[in-house]
Formats: sequence, structure tokens, C-alpha cells
Amino acid sequence: MASLRGMQQPELSKKLFKMIKSENHTIGAYESASRERISIASQLSDWGEATGDDAISDISDKLGVLLSELGEQEDVFAQNLEDYRSILKQIRNTESSVQPSRDHKAKISDEIQKLKYKEPQSTKLVTLEQELVRAEAQNLVAEAQLTNITRQKLKEAYDIHFAAVIERAEKQILLARHGRRILNLLDDTPVVPGDTRPAFEHAHQARQVLHDAEEDLREWTPSLEPVPSSATDLGTNLMPTSPQSVEQQVETGSPVQQRITGSEKGVSNAGQLASTDSRDVSGSSTAVQPEPSTSYQQQ
Amino acid sequence: MASLRGMQQPELSKKLFKMIKSENHTIGAYESASRERISIASQLSDWGEATGDDAISDISDKLGVLLSELGEQEDVFAQNLEDYRSILKQIRNTESSVQPSRDHKAKISDEIQKLKYKEPQSTKLVTLEQELVRAEAQNLVAEAQLTNITRQKLKEAYDIHFAAVIERAEKQILLARHGRRILNLLDDTPVVPGDTRPAFEHAHQARQVLHDAEEDLREWTPSLEPVPSSATDLGTNLMPTSPQSVEQQVETGSPVQQRITGSEKGVSNAGQLASTDSRDVSGSSTAVQPEPSTSYQQQ
Repeated sequence: MASLRGMQQPELSKKLFKMIKSENHTIGAYESASRERISIASQLSDWGEATGDDAISDISDKLGVLLSELGEQEDVFAQNLEDYRSILKQIRNTESSVQPSRDHKAKISDEIQKLKYKEPQSTKLVTLEQELVRAEAQNLVAEAQLTNITRQKLKEAYDIHFAAVIERAEKQILLARHGRRILNLLDDTPVVPGDTRPAFEHAHQARQVLHDAEEDLREWTPSLEPVPSSATDLGTNLMPTSPQSVEQQVETGSPVQQRITGSEKGVSNAGQLASTDSRDVSGSSTAVQPEPSTSYQQQ
Repeated sequence: MASLRGMQQPELSKKLFKMIKSENHTIGAYESASRERISIASQLSDWGEATGDDAISDISDKLGVLLSELGEQEDVFAQNLEDYRSILKQIRNTESSVQPSRDHKAKISDEIQKLKYKEPQSTKLVTLEQELVRAEAQNLVAEAQLTNITRQKLKEAYDIHFAAVIERAEKQILLARHGRRILNLLDDTPVVPGDTRPAFEHAHQARQVLHDAEEDLREWTPSLEPVPSSATDLGTNLMPTSPQSVEQQVETGSPVQQRITGSEKGVSNAGQLASTDSRDVSGSSTAVQPEPSTSYQQQ
């Protein structure tokens, strides 16, 4: 453990924090595999040249080109995993930012309990109860933002992850199949001492295989079952948007923290935010309510 | 560099020695990627459970199963690369064992040159010339063995390598495509504060996806363009075999070193081993000569 910094993560984001760290090791492993394979590809070509056997020399060089490209694809994969990982971070960041809201609510609740026991007649209780209602409203917003971002980003992250797996796989299959064609140009009929091997006559074919491989890679396009998102109307405030509320969001900026700290007025009921000032919880009162059960069935 | 031992490799096998070492690092990288991905899969499942969201919990658990299997496939790949690597070692070992034969020939040649300069009348010259003829014959055998093993094992090694790439790729494509189906069971329609998510109703479908994935993996079979070898008649002495010479090979044991050290008699002509005692260079005189050009064209 090189740093204790990570251990100071809020409880809510600890698991994802650790997972994102592990993904960094995975990505490192693929980057390392990529580097090694690219290096080995050129070692193979060098070795083949040093054998002084024309056929081995040419074939090992062509194999080297394909193996090097196989290695490159490991790096492309690592970079795609990096994209996936950055999406996971968005969930983690929201988790971190929601923690204070939970803590704040719990703290006031706690204070009220203590005060009720020690000074049941204290006038401070009324103030605290009002504060609790506001804290609960704040937290309701925070929790809605959390579920919205979590579901959307989980889908997005693994959409990218699986697409990356498929891309690497399909491209590497192309390369490996062409590799097998090149192998078949090498005659391994054994010779007896003193025999000389016939000259290598497949140099042209070997070049053609590389050309085909390049062509196939260039023409490759992803063919994936789409992973559609129903979160396209998710505003920058992490709430469903409607045309009316878009302007307000642009105006108020947005992210989670601001939403939470800015919503301490006009909350009439902690359980029902429908009457909340639309500046504070924009979209919740003016936006068309999403219809989860309908769009659910569409999938 | 943890050891200097590798640096003592004969010149002839140095390149392959280094390449085989690099392959070890590649294999290590894939083993590490495998371990990380399996660990992350279970971290994802744990995280999902901790969210307290039934849909996220179920889907992250099912994704975890698929991701863990994706990780397992990295390890299968690493083990297949290990097989490929051990075939490369057979080439390297033959290279190492051929080096003394080259050195021996060069050394005698060198002694003759020196002696011709210092004592042109020395009777030792005749003995040395005879020794050189034998050394050249030995080396011819060694070089034939080297080319035979190199070509055969190069094909075999990369046959395994490319087959491993294709196996991992095809299996991971299966898994990733099923992963995308699972993602599509997650509704990411955003909610407003206070809304509750509808209950997760796709648990059965998610289980079915895992079942399908298992079934697909079980039914997977390799479908590869074959890489046929013409070295099927390569004897344990690394020479072409014929029915007549099989008994002799079984009797004489075989590998390169023994062949070389055991062939110091009856060599009439360094350039032509046709009249060599068949015990020393078994197969060269009695075996049907391979027809490289014919089998070449068949490919």
C-alpha cells in the first residue's frame, strides 16, 4: 500500500473506489502484455533473419507483423478499459458526494433524540425538527441523483467494457486466421544431411496475406446488440429534464453538491418534493414525470 | 536482471532464449489480468448488493459471473501460451546442442590453418584433416536436425499460439454478447426525488442469460483452418524416418547430442553423407528421400 489516501473515502464509495483501483491494475497488465508482445514480434523477426534460412526469415518477419498488431490490439483494449473505468468513477464521485447528505440527516436526527431525552421542553427542538425536514428533502434529492447516475453509468460502463472485449476479440481473430495462412506457407518436410532446401517461393503470397489482414482490419466495424439507455433526458442536475427546465439548469450550473447545498428553502414535506421550488430541485415539479413501468416493458 | 545464467547461452540460441524469457513476462501479465478480473467481478457483485437496489444487485451479480468467466479465459489463454512457449524451447534446445558441433568444426579448421603456417610438414596435419572431415559430417547432421526441428516446431508453436488467440476471442465474444443482454435488463429511466423504482422483474431472464452463456461455452468447439505438418515422418533423431530405419532409431536412442558424438566413423566425404554408416546417420542412406519440391507445391 503506497498511500493511505484512498482509505479516507466515504463509506458509500469505498467499494467502488477499490474496484476502480483494481481495474487500474488490470489495465496495467494489458499494457504490459501489449508491450511484451510487440517486442517479442520484433525479436521473432530478428531471430528468423539470423537463422540464415530464407523461408524462416520471411515467414518469421511476416508473423512478426501480425503478432505486433495482435499486441497493439491489447493496448487498444487497455485504452477502452480506461474509458470504461472513467465512467465508473462518475458513479463513485456521486457516491462520495451523497455521503455528506446522509451524514447530515443522521446527525440532526441524532441531536433531536438526545435533546428529547435531556431537555424535552427545549425550544431548540422546533428548530431542529424544521432542519430535519430540510435535510430529509435534501437527501431525497441526493438519493434520486445517486440512483439515476448509478443505473445510467453502470449500463454505459459495461456497454463500453463488453464492446471493448468484442472489438479486441474480433480483430484478433482476423489477425490469427491470417497468421495461420502464413504458417501454411512454411514447408516443414524434413531433410537429410547435405540436402539443401528448395528456395522459398511464397514471398509474394506472404505479402498478400499481410495485405489482406490490413484490409480486413480497416474494414472492421463493430456489430453489437445495442444497449439503449432511457436516461437520455437526464439533466446535468441528474434529474429527468423537460424542455421547460433546461434553461434553469444551464443557468444554475448543476452538479450534485450544488444541488444539495442549494435546496434548503421552500421544502414543505420531506416525503413529497412536488411542491419544492423548481430552482432547487429543477425538473421535479415542472418536468414531465418519467414513466418507468412503460419504458421498462419496452425492453 | 536477477541472474547472469542466461547470458551463458551459446550464441546460436541467445535470441530465442531471450524471446522465450519475454514470453514468460507476457504469460505473467495475462495471469495477472486474469486474477484481477476475477477479483473485480466479485467486487462488482459485492458493490451491487451494498447499493440496496434490487435491480442493480441482481444485475451486478450476473455481470460478475460473466466477467469472472471472461477472467478465467485469460488464464486459459496464458496456459495455452505456456504450451506454445514450451515448443519454442525445443527449437532453442536444439540450437544450443548444435553450437558445440559448429565450434568443434571451427576449432579444427583453425588448428589446421595455424599448423600449416607454423609447421607445414607436420604429420599431425593429416590427422587433423581427417578429423575435420568427420567434424564436418557431424555438423552436417546437426544442421539438418536444426532445420528440421526449427521448421516443424515453428509451425507447431504458432499453430498453438494462433489457436489460443482464436479460442480466447471466440469464447469472450460469447460472454460479452450475453453480458450486453443482461445490461438491457436494467432500466435506467431517471426518477425524481421521492419516486420509488418499480420492483425488478427480470431476475428470471437474467438467470436465463447465464444459462445460455454456459450452454454456449460448453458447445464451443474450435473451427480453424488446419496447419498441416509435413514433418510427420520426423524421427526421434530429427531426421526423416522410413520403415526400415525405425528399429535402428529405437535401438540407438536418439537426440541431437548423441547423434553428433556418435558419428565419428565411416564418413567418406564431408559434403556427401550418402555412404555414411546408417547407424550413425540413420535414415540418410536407407530412408526414402523426402521430396520437398513436390510436397511444397501441394501447399
